[in-house]
Amino acid sequence: MSAAHNAQSWIESANGHPDFPLQNLPLGVFSPPGDSPRGGVAIGDYIFDLKTACEAGLFHGAAHQAALVASGDSLNAFFAAGPTARRTLRDALIHLLSEGSGEQKRMEHLGAALLKPQAACRMHLPAKVGDYTDFYVGIHHAQNVGKLFRPDNPLLPNYKYVPIGYHGRASTIVPSGTEVRRPNGQTLPAGLDVPVFGPCARMDLELELGIWIGQGNDQGKAIPINAASGHIAGFCLLNDWSARDVQAWEYQPLGPFLSKSFATTVSPWVVTAEALEPFRVAQPARPEGDPQPLPYLYDEGDQQRGALDIELEVLLHTARMRREHQAPERIALSSTLNMYWTVAQMVAHHSVNGCRLQAGDLFGSGTLSGETPDSFGSLLEMTFGGKQPVMLANGEERRFLEDGDEIILRARCRREGHASIGFGECRGRILPAH
Amino acid sequence: MSAAHNAQSWIESANGHPDFPLQNLPLGVFSPPGDSPRGGVAIGDYIFDLKTACEAGLFHGAAHQAALVASGDSLNAFFAAGPTARRTLRDALIHLLSEGSGEQKRMEHLGAALLKPQAACRMHLPAKVGDYTDFYVGIHHAQNVGKLFRPDNPLLPNYKYVPIGYHGRASTIVPSGTEVRRPNGQTLPAGLDVPVFGPCARMDLELELGIWIGQGNDQGKAIPINAASGHIAGFCLLNDWSARDVQAWEYQPLGPFLSKSFATTVSPWVVTAEALEPFRVAQPARPEGDPQPLPYLYDEGDQQRGALDIELEVLLHTARMRREHQAPERIALSSTLNMYWTVAQMVAHHSVNGCRLQAGDLFGSGTLSGETPDSFGSLLEMTFGGKQPVMLANGEERRFLEDGDEIILRARCRREGHASIGFGECRGRILPAH
Repeated sequence: MSAAHNAQSWIESANGHPDFPLQNLPLGVFSPPGDSPRGGVAIGDYIFDLKTACEAGLFHGAAHQAALVASGDSLNAFFAAGPTARRTLRDALIHLLSEGSGEQKRMEHLGAALLKPQAACRMHLPAKVGDYTDFYVGIHHAQNVGKLFRPDNPLLPNYKYVPIGYHGRASTIVPSGTEVRRPNGQTLPAGLDVPVFGPCARMDLELELGIWIGQGNDQGKAIPINAASGHIAGFCLLNDWSARDVQAWEYQPLGPFLSKSFATTVSPWVVTAEALEPFRVAQPARPEGDPQPLPYLYDEGDQQRGALDIELEVLLHTARMRREHQAPERIALSSTLNMYWTVAQMVAHHSVNGCRLQAGDLFGSGTLSGETPDSFGSLLEMTFGGKQPVMLANGEERRFLEDGDEIILRARCRREGHASIGFGECRGRILPAH
Repeated sequence: MSAAHNAQSWIESANGHPDFPLQNLPLGVFSPPGDSPRGGVAIGDYIFDLKTACEAGLFHGAAHQAALVASGDSLNAFFAAGPTARRTLRDALIHLLSEGSGEQKRMEHLGAALLKPQAACRMHLPAKVGDYTDFYVGIHHAQNVGKLFRPDNPLLPNYKYVPIGYHGRASTIVPSGTEVRRPNGQTLPAGLDVPVFGPCARMDLELELGIWIGQGNDQGKAIPINAASGHIAGFCLLNDWSARDVQAWEYQPLGPFLSKSFATTVSPWVVTAEALEPFRVAQPARPEGDPQPLPYLYDEGDQQRGALDIELEVLLHTARMRREHQAPERIALSSTLNMYWTVAQMVAHHSVNGCRLQAGDLFGSGTLSGETPDSFGSLLEMTFGGKQPVMLANGEERRFLEDGDEIILRARCRREGHASIGFGECRGRILPAH
């Protein structure tokens, strides 16, 4: 079930809310002021407290069971419960939160016990991440970066056959708002033969879509492409912070390691497949001459409806902007339509060797850059490898991130005849190196 | 405390036991027949059941607390408790299990409730693995493999500065004895332009030392090299199964992914730093002309005592050998002295960017090959990239692993004037692809 595109909530701030109208209902884990973590649902400027709702008996039957599972201090068990539990809870929430709900009076009576102002709450990671995998499906990013690292062969021969990915670090994934310490590391400055050690001098962001895995698979058993979307619990924004100078020196032959593992920031709200349903579109046609996906990566339904049409934004808020009370400045506008592979193809590929996925695993899409510099999802690309600074409206310029810079990722889905929904923010500020 | 080198146990099978004399006392998690998982200690042919021991009041004070923490269904909390708790428990165990222990009668009275025959028990992973990192510190392996993948520059310029590593897959780490399903995947057969999909045709093993992380660090705070060994809980054997044909096609530019993530096998017993103390030696001198480690990787004490002298073996047991009742055949004999970096250097490097390590994280050393073919730790090396088969005593030959082949890793520490200790087995048999 999906809330009708024009359905309104009795919670007024939800109606026309840029991120969290009735049609979205993303799940997350939060702490109310002075209280312990629990599951909740974003609605307008509020969080609907699932713990309170369960205790008050607002749900019944299967929806009560689903809400109970989602009301704990992590959503892993809820993710594992799969699409049916998720849809059941969504239906019940739409029923409760729609204008004219028979339960409105009772919920209003519960007041702040049930509906907490988001601004007063602390958000946590929605789930304990088992394994984190970062893909590389943004083809323009792969081309742009390939040009910098390997001018002769920017896009390697495997790119159009293999949804390239690598294992990332799960222990340093943090929720939006967590400060990020500039890492120290080894780098090889231009012209030197011997590396030096010190603070990263080419600190970067990467604009990515995050994908939360729901039901897992047994080790040794692949998930077929036509079942893959049933294994996805939801979506978030992900900033894959990158120390470019460390990366350039360390990444061969086994891939990025310390250049990425110091921190990865995610937006805390899990936007469900159901909320994104109106924004699913056909996978953009592969350019003339590109190969068809191998059969294990090909599903007609996935080709027709497997892509996502989500607008993505990168904003920069410098220390000077904050001092001078200026708003953050947008430095990139991109889209999930820049993905060469669908999320279903990512799941099918990841598990085709029998690799076990588990509820709470997280995928990153890889940086989602568009074709033009104003849509590039990293400073490495925007500055052509640090050569050409980004000029900001207040006169500042940036080649890479400076201490005190804050990066904010946002996402929005818009479609004629449908209520717009958003992802909330994925925000992180750089602290100086130790 | 360490058991005197000639100290004997009242448990007779421990005395002269190739793996588990009184001087070893490795920890693990096991299920007795028909019962639930709990912590235990290997002694001779038996497992000392820590749960029973705690219930019977065999420990006192701090040792009781440590044993209680180690008696649960995973050792994560015990690893997190650090070296003091570990040493306290070890001292108490040596006291209880030594010949002439005042408690011997009481323990004998507890019989099979306390001492379970290993052969009747099922071993589990000793800890829930948070993150798994695979290093590449076996320099001969790096050179051998480098020659096959990059004949022009086998050892990349970063190798002697950076303890190269990459993130591995935690969810598919399995204990010794778990069967391993041959993976399917994409490969690019020689002479073709277009990849094919199917069962891996170049299935390989990798002989590695596993390192269990104990106390972790806060995100953003590096572990200095001189404190690194205090963050290591213990050691095991690790087989990093590898699909070489998948690896060759997928690994650029982000490193190995599905070629490794289908399974990693570890030996279930955690051999402690205390048990290995007599087998610590000076780090072998770097060859003439090699650079010194950067200061964050250099500690005088680590140089003097940071290397490990552990003999490592790879055995192959084919289906035909089993049918014909032949013993497994040794196909390689190597040593941890082939590590170019110490485990302390691995810990210091991994955390230098602020990456958070947690109790229960696992490191692999990377394949530990020696300089000659009889000491190579992978078939890729032994067969020079599959070109020259390994000839087995029964007339069989192998380029890569066949279905039904079982690989057994073993490790032994020997030193004049000290009781030898071993690691137990790391064993896995290949099942045909789905």
